[in-house]
Amino acid sequence: MPYAHKVAPGSKVALSKIKPDDNGGMDKEEGLARFAKLNAELDVIQEELYAAGTHSVLLVLQGMDTSGKDGTIRNVLLNLNPQGVRVESFKVPTEEELAHDFLWRVHKVAPRKGEFGVFNRSHYEDVLVVRVHDLAPKEVWQARYEQINQFEALLAATGTIIVKLFLHISKGEQEERLREREQDVTKAWKLSAGDWREREYWDDYQNAYEDALERCSTEAAPWYIVPADRKWFRNLAATEVLVDTLNAYRDGWHATLDEMSKARVAELQEYRAGKPV
Amino acid sequence: MPYAHKVAPGSKVALSKIKPDDNGGMDKEEGLARFAKLNAELDVIQEELYAAGTHSVLLVLQGMDTSGKDGTIRNVLLNLNPQGVRVESFKVPTEEELAHDFLWRVHKVAPRKGEFGVFNRSHYEDVLVVRVHDLAPKEVWQARYEQINQFEALLAATGTIIVKLFLHISKGEQEERLREREQDVTKAWKLSAGDWREREYWDDYQNAYEDALERCSTEAAPWYIVPADRKWFRNLAATEVLVDTLNAYRDGWHATLDEMSKARVAELQEYRAGKPV
Repeated sequence: MPYAHKVAPGSKVALSKIKPDDNGGMDKEEGLARFAKLNAELDVIQEELYAAGTHSVLLVLQGMDTSGKDGTIRNVLLNLNPQGVRVESFKVPTEEELAHDFLWRVHKVAPRKGEFGVFNRSHYEDVLVVRVHDLAPKEVWQARYEQINQFEALLAATGTIIVKLFLHISKGEQEERLREREQDVTKAWKLSAGDWREREYWDDYQNAYEDALERCSTEAAPWYIVPADRKWFRNLAATEVLVDTLNAYRDGWHATLDEMSKARVAELQEYRAGKPV
Repeated sequence: MPYAHKVAPGSKVALSKIKPDDNGGMDKEEGLARFAKLNAELDVIQEELYAAGTHSVLLVLQGMDTSGKDGTIRNVLLNLNPQGVRVESFKVPTEEELAHDFLWRVHKVAPRKGEFGVFNRSHYEDVLVVRVHDLAPKEVWQARYEQINQFEALLAATGTIIVKLFLHISKGEQEERLREREQDVTKAWKLSAGDWREREYWDDYQNAYEDALERCSTEAAPWYIVPADRKWFRNLAATEVLVDTLNAYRDGWHATLDEMSKARVAELQEYRAGKPV
């Protein structure tokens, strides 16, 4: 029984039926031990991904404010080789970005072969905040679900392994986290009245998320709902999805590395034999 | 007594006089303990750099093949938040890159404010490999030292903190590392006849490095020579340079964060008072 909930393509999503405070039936200590084991595995997998250079990984992180996107990046990717990891954060679009289609700025920074790319927020904001705040006409954002699916299908068909995680927290947990920030005077610069203002649209966002998860979970680029009220469980569940997804590619990477090894050894032998290489 | 050797601007460099196997008079155990302490400090410093958003860091790594550029990135930056780190590796220039001046591709990926950028190899290759292999006329690469200094002065003047590390290994240590790679059959894909071929130009490279270090160590962007035969010492020395350099900026970052905190608290109070924010 996996810790995160895969959204089966074509199925309905009711976020209210998925427990944000799920702990997988274990305590924190056990969860941390399992996380450490999986995380070490992810480290090895990344080395193979990087060395083989046949695929890219694209991890898309979405979730309400305080749902732990930053924390997931920090904890899940902490042991990966920084050289092969690239995190892209998408803020309010610039004038130049707005002068292009909504996928332009995203496509530009898609991960290269061998790279482990992370989108902290993503093109999904264009069917989330844009929809909730009426930043585009309905027919515009309605068309985007299919445009997103086609874009992701292109990436997947050309070697990008896409993992999309929705960090699912409860409204109560969000309030607690926002208030916690106010207790810590040394971190007061992290406060944001904007987070409280956005919180007033909680239900609208949940609806927008349900639609995005339903319409854009495909075989090529599935969505996973990660219970995220408990940070240790969120990290465990996110890591598990990544390890399970990437494990399917490892035999192929090993074969590629074997081929590369043979070629390199032969090249070295020729060099030693004094032939021109 | 710092572990790395700062190249005083305008001074001469004789690499043969600097011991690549320096251990700073300590054993590995002590070195690892000191490294752990400094590395934890670097982690806190990065958070402040990122949050304050007033400066960028640019770490330039250069060194002979096997000198440990990848290992330095992996070890020294491992605990930093991946979200604020960006590693750029420069390979053989593409046709588009060659159609521009040599600093074009480098400038494009200079780190943004708050970011900790790393160049794994850099624009210095244009006065190293280019010079050793006659890839450009002498008057072209000769002019580059001053062009580099002016470029780096621009970055420094506009908020980039530049740290340049030359990883200094001995010719014997390189041979040992290249041969070690041949022992590990599972890593045979890392072998490269090219590394052995380049090794034949060892002295030319050392000369080219000496010139680059002499001509391009400036107050705004100093070069440091890091004894790198011992990996643990290399990591310690590199981390020390970073921590010492960045510590000088922390009071300013704290002041910025205090200002931000005040503004955020005020904004939140206004929001709570029901005023439009």
